[in-house]
Amino acid sequence: MGHRKDENMISKLITKIQEKDAPVVVGLDPMLNYVPEWIQKKAFEEHGETLEGAAEAIWQYNKGIVDATYDLIPAVKPQIAMYEQFGIPGLMAFKKTVDYCKEKGLVVIGDIKRGDIGSTSTAYAVGHIGKVTVGSKSYAGFDEDIVTVNPYLGSDGVKPFIDVCKQEDKGIFVLVKTSNPSSGEFQDQMVDGKPLYELVAKKVAEWGEECMDGAYSNVGCVIGATYPEMGKVLRKLMPKAYILVPGYGAQGGTAKDLAPYFNEDGLGAIVNSSRGIIAAYKNDKYAKFGEKNYADASRQAVVDMIEDINGALK
Amino acid sequence: MGHRKDENMISKLITKIQEKDAPVVVGLDPMLNYVPEWIQKKAFEEHGETLEGAAEAIWQYNKGIVDATYDLIPAVKPQIAMYEQFGIPGLMAFKKTVDYCKEKGLVVIGDIKRGDIGSTSTAYAVGHIGKVTVGSKSYAGFDEDIVTVNPYLGSDGVKPFIDVCKQEDKGIFVLVKTSNPSSGEFQDQMVDGKPLYELVAKKVAEWGEECMDGAYSNVGCVIGATYPEMGKVLRKLMPKAYILVPGYGAQGGTAKDLAPYFNEDGLGAIVNSSRGIIAAYKNDKYAKFGEKNYADASRQAVVDMIEDINGALK
Repeated sequence: MGHRKDENMISKLITKIQEKDAPVVVGLDPMLNYVPEWIQKKAFEEHGETLEGAAEAIWQYNKGIVDATYDLIPAVKPQIAMYEQFGIPGLMAFKKTVDYCKEKGLVVIGDIKRGDIGSTSTAYAVGHIGKVTVGSKSYAGFDEDIVTVNPYLGSDGVKPFIDVCKQEDKGIFVLVKTSNPSSGEFQDQMVDGKPLYELVAKKVAEWGEECMDGAYSNVGCVIGATYPEMGKVLRKLMPKAYILVPGYGAQGGTAKDLAPYFNEDGLGAIVNSSRGIIAAYKNDKYAKFGEKNYADASRQAVVDMIEDINGALK
Repeated sequence: MGHRKDENMISKLITKIQEKDAPVVVGLDPMLNYVPEWIQKKAFEEHGETLEGAAEAIWQYNKGIVDATYDLIPAVKPQIAMYEQFGIPGLMAFKKTVDYCKEKGLVVIGDIKRGDIGSTSTAYAVGHIGKVTVGSKSYAGFDEDIVTVNPYLGSDGVKPFIDVCKQEDKGIFVLVKTSNPSSGEFQDQMVDGKPLYELVAKKVAEWGEECMDGAYSNVGCVIGATYPEMGKVLRKLMPKAYILVPGYGAQGGTAKDLAPYFNEDGLGAIVNSSRGIIAAYKNDKYAKFGEKNYADASRQAVVDMIEDINGALK
């Protein structure tokens, strides 16, 4: 299989963002208490109150949301922890979700935050965005398009992911500054007069040079929506890195906070919302849809999110 | 189920270390090219050259090693990446390995290096060392005894694991200083005149206070064997934290490097070897055992490792 220029991942993501005029990603992070009662009931009738039953419930819930929103959005971001908590059946639901979203033409960003030393990072990379060799055959274990990576172990923990990106035309988003309240405990510590996250950002820019795909790199990063001032500085340090921005909506980031994350070309960032979309029906604003039509509530929340973000950018 | 004092995880680990007089852990990190040809052949005959075939091969390989060494050692540390690379079948082999090792009375340290924001860390904690609720039932997805945790996201990424430790009498080892060559890129950066890993170490000590179990805490840490000088400083900063020490043997750490990781009581550290034990038969020193008797080679390598380490400590 030769390397085809037009298949590079970040270009593919950008094309889809432009086609849909929607720099957004829907976070498929299904907590069981988000899943409407009627879906849980049906799944438990078929499989009992078991891990299989829970996995079936979250899969059916996801499928409903994907069917109702896939034409509006370029990408989804399933958070693997929400599946892993249900053990093997949960991870089977994760895999099913990844496969289904790809069938629907969506770019799938596996929010896995893996990172380890050399050969171990290679194993994660191979399992999630590459292919593993078994005798004379090779197989893609999970086959996401892009995954999130934790940089705490340094270059030799990240480079194996970049090697696989190059081989397979895939992408990674490296954690630079996360959206949670205590992210500053280590990430904001001052190193030679600059916060640590800026040092990580410089490394992301350096790693990204190896992996360019047009104006942007297949090595992107994660910066929480809750820090617009930092976003501005980091945008300049990594002009060619696509920024995945979690924390919009439920975590407190607003559309006007997001402008600094984008470049002059109107590109360079993609904003994630999870609970705000997938559990929209539980929000007063969308309560009129009711539990039965939870997926329509999610669709309306996506429409509103795109309008909100595009409005703030234009 | 009430909380029973005698079931706390770090006490359980210490009791086993003392019974076997062996502060060691065997890293079950099966690369397919470590697995003897005859095991691969048999697995591929039954399942084809498939992910299922690979998973069967690594499971049979692990089982041989566990059967040959379990009476000598207190604990094993399966590295989940090595299973995850084979997708769902690989993770089923991980689960089978965890269950089998627990049946054999071993403490199972899941080397998962997970870490995320609040509710997502809770999901990982619940999936690996806790129980997830499904309707009126609850289930342990993977059910390790202890897991490794990445601290880059700060306290609110780590505390959910500690909460589950308290509920379930389990433990965690937080990454402080990893054994890989580029671990210093971020971990060694100077913050107020001290390296970042010392700041992480102080947090580990603080988190550990919440979770004491006799003289030691159920919150331990990971420090590579390749940094004895750092080990000395970190030991003092976290006197009550058990230190999991990877990097002995194949990664270059020697027994005499390890003394600083232990406390005066002869406790406080457990040394991991992976490749040096599980692929011992590929080492000239143990080549006489041959591929067929790979597990006997592993047993001899464990005997030698325990002698080497205890010799350096006494």
